Amino acid sequence: MCVYEALDSYQREIGAPYGRSGYRAAEEAQRLVVSARRKVAEIVGIQNPNHLAFTANGTDALNTSILGILRPGDHVVTTVCEHNSVVRPLIYLADEHQVEVSYVTCDVAGYVSPDDILKELRPNTRLVVVIHASNVTGAIQPIAEIGNRVRTHGAYYLVDAAQSLGHVPLDWNACHVDLLAASGHKGLLGPLGTGVLCLGERVLDELQPLRRGGTGTESDDERQPAELPERFEAGNLNVPALAGLAAAAEYLQQHSIEAIQLHHHQLSERLLAGLESLPGITIHGPRSDQPRTSVVSFTCAGYDPQELAALLEMAAGIECRAGLHCAPRMHRALGTLAGGGTIRLSPGWATTREEIDTTISALEHLLASPVK
Amino acid sequence: MCVYEALDSYQREIGAPYGRSGYRAAEEAQRLVVSARRKVAEIVGIQNPNHLAFTANGTDALNTSILGILRPGDHVVTTVCEHNSVVRPLIYLADEHQVEVSYVTCDVAGYVSPDDILKELRPNTRLVVVIHASNVTGAIQPIAEIGNRVRTHGAYYLVDAAQSLGHVPLDWNACHVDLLAASGHKGLLGPLGTGVLCLGERVLDELQPLRRGGTGTESDDERQPAELPERFEAGNLNVPALAGLAAAAEYLQQHSIEAIQLHHHQLSERLLAGLESLPGITIHGPRSDQPRTSVVSFTCAGYDPQELAALLEMAAGIECRAGLHCAPRMHRALGTLAGGGTIRLSPGWATTREEIDTTISALEHLLASPVK
Repeated sequence: MCVYEALDSYQREIGAPYGRSGYRAAEEAQRLVVSARRKVAEIVGIQNPNHLAFTANGTDALNTSILGILRPGDHVVTTVCEHNSVVRPLIYLADEHQVEVSYVTCDVAGYVSPDDILKELRPNTRLVVVIHASNVTGAIQPIAEIGNRVRTHGAYYLVDAAQSLGHVPLDWNACHVDLLAASGHKGLLGPLGTGVLCLGERVLDELQPLRRGGTGTESDDERQPAELPERFEAGNLNVPALAGLAAAAEYLQQHSIEAIQLHHHQLSERLLAGLESLPGITIHGPRSDQPRTSVVSFTCAGYDPQELAALLEMAAGIECRAGLHCAPRMHRALGTLAGGGTIRLSPGWATTREEIDTTISALEHLLASPVK
Repeated sequence: MCVYEALDSYQREIGAPYGRSGYRAAEEAQRLVVSARRKVAEIVGIQNPNHLAFTANGTDALNTSILGILRPGDHVVTTVCEHNSVVRPLIYLADEHQVEVSYVTCDVAGYVSPDDILKELRPNTRLVVVIHASNVTGAIQPIAEIGNRVRTHGAYYLVDAAQSLGHVPLDWNACHVDLLAASGHKGLLGPLGTGVLCLGERVLDELQPLRRGGTGTESDDERQPAELPERFEAGNLNVPALAGLAAAAEYLQQHSIEAIQLHHHQLSERLLAGLESLPGITIHGPRSDQPRTSVVSFTCAGYDPQELAALLEMAAGIECRAGLHCAPRMHRALGTLAGGGTIRLSPGWATTREEIDTTISALEHLLASPVK
């Protein structure tokens, strides 16, 4: 069943909440959520599906991780590549709860060196946070190498997989990840309103939930139940969207993430080659033969990114996001902050070669006969 | 457009996130969210729609309120009628952050006295939390009278409207509410995965967000933007469900909450009269001529609530929730905790008189010829 059919079918035929009752429709809702949990756990590679909690979105999973694991006096190592959903909670803890944060920089393509992270680790470093794939440059960080070094030190390791889960195969065990946060609506191809938080064994007794409340379990206990995944799932789950996520995860498994990654690679290779052939365009991020997702950021001499994005839509119906992409330190590192960021093109599984060619032609045409 | 059509139409034809880009589909998503916000604000009666933030569910809105407004050393007054989504965050603050909590009891029908709340107010009482309508008994608390007394004292006033918003008209201004939290999928008739948090003027500068992260605004600021509603909406909003919520709010406005309330009243009157006529049944909650919603809780001598619920479904397809309904103090006050809670029937706008009669007949038959 495709994602919107799964969502619509839940809305029309089930409509019951998860984990609150025992009647037939409620059991059907239960089955959908359990199925979504099991399938996404398989994609991540974690063995116990109950160590995967559903959240409202990726930001919710990141906030739960960061606010739930850090205590006053702790030190955190992170990178300049992080999204504001990591930076803003960390700055808040630095401002108000005596947490200290170190930022490791990246090279011109957007890669972070595992050794640079190692150098920043201190005795009181409790957490290392690394974005798996940059939402600005597409650079895929060496999360397994970083994980190895972090595990040797003993700090907890949070990977922000918002831009990678479903796009790139993930080897949970090899990466020594303690916490993994992702959106459900990006690479997992599910609906908005879904996020996942995956928990390694080491954090099970350490992580505090962000929300407390009704879980449909242990109702006579006035403290949040310790059970997983309920501890991190207070309040009603977004069952219609999780029905969609279950369908999306099944689709991913059928087509394989390797096939999706190959398609992305072919598209971004073509897109990068096309962009390189155009005058005045600067690509900000890895080459096509470096570890990367299909996200491509560029700037164009003489154009404000927002302006060129609007022209691309008018000229050829190309929809893209221009600006800072909620990652100001990344743009500072790339030298694109003052110019208002970059234009980002994000070819996906449904994108065709022809659409890449249309994009390049439209850009070529715009740059050859500027409207201004 | 009906709710599931609105949701499905977003999924098939729009699919863009809210507040992240400027292309046509993204603007359409923007329009849907703005429309949902404006319509729900009208139902609540708050003038500035930006003082209404969307949350993941009611629990998310309650946790944001409670964790965002209380500081160590504060005192809170609440009632024994509250849901675990209020009790569990409060107990957490009491356990770990030096917050003290007083619980005001209720009468046998489930009503709290405004004077009893007044008596508990202390100089350091920073927050009063009251559930508008009980999810166990259906009792509607005198929230305006309580609000008057609380405002005179100066404490902030949080109303949990999860079980009332959309079921019962609300006069925001008359009630002196500072914070109002509700689910979108109950009385508002929207989809799961939606909640609302309404902010009074007095808390605008005081309330801390629960989550920090990308807002699509002020991207170069590494602190959470102060702007409303963005301050409380980090991460992607659940746009498909909000498209559904906009359709639901329009439906509510067309039919009027007064008409819905009248229908609920007629159904619960009939249900209560039917239950009263049956031997061995005890109703826990207000009479039909007292302020109440249509939620009706009862127990039946000789039956475990879960068991009778299962029999009702088998006999006549009646779906209900049995147990503690995530409100253990309420059941302790009603004397139903040890017996495993109550059976709760919740007639709604789509419920008919005939379905009420079927329920009573099914119960009559079950009690006349017990299977055990």
